[in-house]
Amino acid sequence: MKAEVIVIGDEILIGQTIDTNSAWIGNELSLLGFDIDRKTAIHDKRDSIIKALSDIKATTDIVIISGGLGPTSDDITKPVLCEFFNTTLVRNPDVLTMIETMMARRGWAMNDNNRRQADVPASCTVLTNAVGTAPGMMFRKDNTYFFSLPGVPNEMKHIMIEHIIPWIKLNFSKQVIIHKNIMTYGAGEAILSELLSAFEAGLPPEIKLAYLPSLGIVKLRLTATGTNRDHLEKLIDGQVGILRKTIPDLIFATTEEPFEKVIAGLLTGNRKTLATAESCTGGKIAQMITSIPGSSAYFKGSVIAYSNEIKTSVLGVPLELINKYGAVSREVVESMAENARQLMNADYAVATSGIAGPGGGTEQKPVGLLWVAVASEKATYSEKFIYGNDRNTTISRFSTAALNMLRKHILQDEKDS
Amino acid sequence: MKAEVIVIGDEILIGQTIDTNSAWIGNELSLLGFDIDRKTAIHDKRDSIIKALSDIKATTDIVIISGGLGPTSDDITKPVLCEFFNTTLVRNPDVLTMIETMMARRGWAMNDNNRRQADVPASCTVLTNAVGTAPGMMFRKDNTYFFSLPGVPNEMKHIMIEHIIPWIKLNFSKQVIIHKNIMTYGAGEAILSELLSAFEAGLPPEIKLAYLPSLGIVKLRLTATGTNRDHLEKLIDGQVGILRKTIPDLIFATTEEPFEKVIAGLLTGNRKTLATAESCTGGKIAQMITSIPGSSAYFKGSVIAYSNEIKTSVLGVPLELINKYGAVSREVVESMAENARQLMNADYAVATSGIAGPGGGTEQKPVGLLWVAVASEKATYSEKFIYGNDRNTTISRFSTAALNMLRKHILQDEKDS
Repeated sequence: MKAEVIVIGDEILIGQTIDTNSAWIGNELSLLGFDIDRKTAIHDKRDSIIKALSDIKATTDIVIISGGLGPTSDDITKPVLCEFFNTTLVRNPDVLTMIETMMARRGWAMNDNNRRQADVPASCTVLTNAVGTAPGMMFRKDNTYFFSLPGVPNEMKHIMIEHIIPWIKLNFSKQVIIHKNIMTYGAGEAILSELLSAFEAGLPPEIKLAYLPSLGIVKLRLTATGTNRDHLEKLIDGQVGILRKTIPDLIFATTEEPFEKVIAGLLTGNRKTLATAESCTGGKIAQMITSIPGSSAYFKGSVIAYSNEIKTSVLGVPLELINKYGAVSREVVESMAENARQLMNADYAVATSGIAGPGGGTEQKPVGLLWVAVASEKATYSEKFIYGNDRNTTISRFSTAALNMLRKHILQDEKDS
Repeated sequence: MKAEVIVIGDEILIGQTIDTNSAWIGNELSLLGFDIDRKTAIHDKRDSIIKALSDIKATTDIVIISGGLGPTSDDITKPVLCEFFNTTLVRNPDVLTMIETMMARRGWAMNDNNRRQADVPASCTVLTNAVGTAPGMMFRKDNTYFFSLPGVPNEMKHIMIEHIIPWIKLNFSKQVIIHKNIMTYGAGEAILSELLSAFEAGLPPEIKLAYLPSLGIVKLRLTATGTNRDHLEKLIDGQVGILRKTIPDLIFATTEEPFEKVIAGLLTGNRKTLATAESCTGGKIAQMITSIPGSSAYFKGSVIAYSNEIKTSVLGVPLELINKYGAVSREVVESMAENARQLMNADYAVATSGIAGPGGGTEQKPVGLLWVAVASEKATYSEKFIYGNDRNTTISRFSTAALNMLRKHILQDEKDS
């Protein structure tokens, strides 16, 4: 089963909007067993849309088109769809009623732009949109089904989830594709692939391995393809078991989840609480931790001590320590962690102090230098890291390094107790 | 001048990696005056790569290919490029030396995977990569130039900036395309387009307007196309002037910049400092503020009071207030802002308390409810907002609403003084 994705919009082509829609769509279709053969981003111009639709291979089963259905005049998709599918626009009274009801509920006035959103090609099946004003549309041409959806992410997702995914499940028998992600931290792609060369050589033919590096994390993706789900699942689980034995220290999760989710599981499982004291990471660690629903159960809070003044006045770091060793030092970061743990009455505290750049570096303490401390009831651990990149990449790498250190210490405490 | 972008990698197709590379490349080429005609993402398979390369139109001047050059075995681009450009792989001694030097500097051992990265097609021009081990390559076929780059974002950017952009500037005379972005907040796309209908009708033929909504912000993009840069710049500046008069309250910036950058300018310009006290936003506001280089000049710090305990113990919010009005209330959020301002000795403090969900909502205080307070020397202002979406979208909208409120009050104080 083959699928293609077409994204319409100049904002995608000129890079003013990052295309997250096609990633989401690709993931969903892949889980349904489709081979995503190609994604194409094009202008919202007649010729580009007609060419992209004409380029779809006859063997493609499903085409998802996203974008070009907004209420404003830069959107021209619907007339072009009429031309391609040889039909005309008609005002759909049900859609009009839905739009009127939605606008009334939000207390917004209805204008002609809104009304025009109820115009749909006569030959399409309308896919209602309960979260926005642009309906989705389904067309068939020979053996290919075309779905046109608004580009606003939550509206696109709503129509996919409510209409298209259930329809696909009903109408397509599945070839099975299983993806399994193993999250690693601590070794780069080339080193990992050397460590895993025997593992790769021994993979059964149904399974492919890919390395997906991002900000210090390398995701290993195993993909099994076949027709028997049980067989493939057993096969892939066996390989994950081998991986765990081959690189035990590098794996932090065997499902695709971020560090903050792993930390959530560890803290919840051990009934422990966390506080952070952040200097150079500026709230990034707290933001990562609180991005997880339910984090209020284990996250007490944080002091973002961006200035030295806050390090002393709120966190109580002795001024002499800062004067003697500098704010970016083992001594200060340990004091930050210990005092944050006390102040916020938490089981663990993580503290960071470093130089995110681009300014502020010296020869002895260059941009990219990070000190992390983890304080617990038993002890305080600290470690130094060096990363070099643009400011926000560095802040992200700092935060991940700090969370990995926290993870290792919680695991160690778990073992010890 | 036409350009196309090809992104190679299954991880993009199945949505495990969001394609930020092609956005960055599209933006750069667009600024150089290229019309980005199409972006295509494909499998790292021979047939897909050959087909995508063959599909490039003869009228395309530049093709940027990103991805498929890593050191691991899932990368097959180089042999396929040899096939397409009818050449063979040869080991390049200069590249090998660069890789050896880089690995030695990082203290990493060299393996065969690394050495193979010095193999390049004999007919290409090598574009050296000072930040990674995979070099870029340039090919010519008829009138089209093909550039193949690694997919790791900072390596791709390095080769673009060091080699390709200077080469394009030298070798292509430019058709001029100017983009101007006006950032608005406070009205949705349909309402904005109604407010701007006369403006749109009066646009000169050289200028196009697009609406780009994202998390409550609608970016208005004016694009001027022609050959005379001075003429176009005058024309577009005139239209920005009209826009400013048409929707003065909705515009927060007339260049593409995020709220935190606007706040940075306002605080620096007025020599004021900022602190935050965040509950539901969990550090997101601090993280946004500190994403701006130099933010330590005006950002004192933050107390992330995720639990009520921290609200009372660190921020000194009276327990009676929390018991009487609840943590999500005007009274508590005002107390948080005032106390944070005192505690951290700042000119302004912003505080948030709300319910980001998915749990924790009640009928009276539903998920999506946010209280924001802004405290300054003169007074404390507070306001209530309601948003509804998934947790992390809600946290982002909360944070933007808080920053917009801060922006308005700094501007008001600027006027008053």
